[in-house]
Amino acid sequence: MSNLQTERTTVRRLPKRGLYDRETVHAIIDEALICHVGFVVDGNPVVIPTIHTRVDDTLYFHGSAASRMLRSLRNGIEACVTVTLLDGLVLARSAFHHSMNYRSAMVFGTAREATDADEKLRVLEALVEHVAKGRSRDARGPNEKELRQTLVLALPIEEGSAKVRTGGPVDDDEDYDLPVWAGVLPLKLVPQSPVPDEKMRPGIAIPRYVDEYRR
Amino acid sequence: MSNLQTERTTVRRLPKRGLYDRETVHAIIDEALICHVGFVVDGNPVVIPTIHTRVDDTLYFHGSAASRMLRSLRNGIEACVTVTLLDGLVLARSAFHHSMNYRSAMVFGTAREATDADEKLRVLEALVEHVAKGRSRDARGPNEKELRQTLVLALPIEEGSAKVRTGGPVDDDEDYDLPVWAGVLPLKLVPQSPVPDEKMRPGIAIPRYVDEYRR
Repeated sequence: MSNLQTERTTVRRLPKRGLYDRETVHAIIDEALICHVGFVVDGNPVVIPTIHTRVDDTLYFHGSAASRMLRSLRNGIEACVTVTLLDGLVLARSAFHHSMNYRSAMVFGTAREATDADEKLRVLEALVEHVAKGRSRDARGPNEKELRQTLVLALPIEEGSAKVRTGGPVDDDEDYDLPVWAGVLPLKLVPQSPVPDEKMRPGIAIPRYVDEYRR
Repeated sequence: MSNLQTERTTVRRLPKRGLYDRETVHAIIDEALICHVGFVVDGNPVVIPTIHTRVDDTLYFHGSAASRMLRSLRNGIEACVTVTLLDGLVLARSAFHHSMNYRSAMVFGTAREATDADEKLRVLEALVEHVAKGRSRDARGPNEKELRQTLVLALPIEEGSAKVRTGGPVDDDEDYDLPVWAGVLPLKLVPQSPVPDEKMRPGIAIPRYVDEYRR
């Protein structure tokens, strides 16, 4: 299994932060709830946030059959999908060396439309599972009309990279004596108390995948 | 003060989620720690995550003078900058109506390089303040060499949109009887315990903007 490095995915700035193995890229894609899809319309860039999921070596995203983004991409134009996880603020002694800890992944390629009904159903289930593992057993699955209204796009994960920063601040030698607090403030996306729908039938317990949600 | 709506920034999918007033777009930009910058290289889209800040009606981002992204953009090519805040998972009774609560903002335009030393200094301070309000009083400011090494780009916030979803799930009428838990799981980016740098001088207290950090 080759890695994902190509000429255009090679990280030039701070190359030691660049990683090209599939395991690292997949793990970042799987943890992130959303991605940012970039594509070109009339020569100009457009970047749209959307939910995604991964099945093996394919990144999937979906939307209404009326979506401009999905209709553009299905014609086979190039996409760049970027996923970013923010892990913390890095406060250095100098403004210049301030940074963030993060894990990001970038995938380049041409998306195809998934038209096969079985593939579509599998992907829609995977999308629900990506957001909340276990949810697809409870929610009503898509019917034929909903399947028709949903466009599913598949982007092969064959060309890409990850970029990762971890650890504390790195200051210039002469700044370590400054009387300035330095360190990392870790950040985490944390679920808050669930808000049940007012119209819910009485007596339905909160499922475990909601009550104990974590990514 | 006109709003930011143009032909290409008009939200087509679920148009009632589209907002075009500056206050809404500014507030989303200000709360987000990072943005995703889209631009076109050799006809292909590239999407890169980066820290940003806003000063009045200008969105700024910065990086090394060696950065490919910044060198591309400084030549005056079109950019699309998208900022996304995730507010919660929306679990409907049907897989089809699953959604997320979010606030996103998108700005289109042509970036210029900020070359004026005063503007650059102001922006670099604003970038530190954007990440942690109060920090620029403590951190050592940029020296001449650091200023030279830093490229600052300015994107006018004149053309853009916001898209916002709030509230609970909306199911099809016939699904409300299903015995399925439905509701919202709110999500929040929460600071964890600060990790002081091992090399810090003894006796430096944790500043309030770290200890009581919030966005």
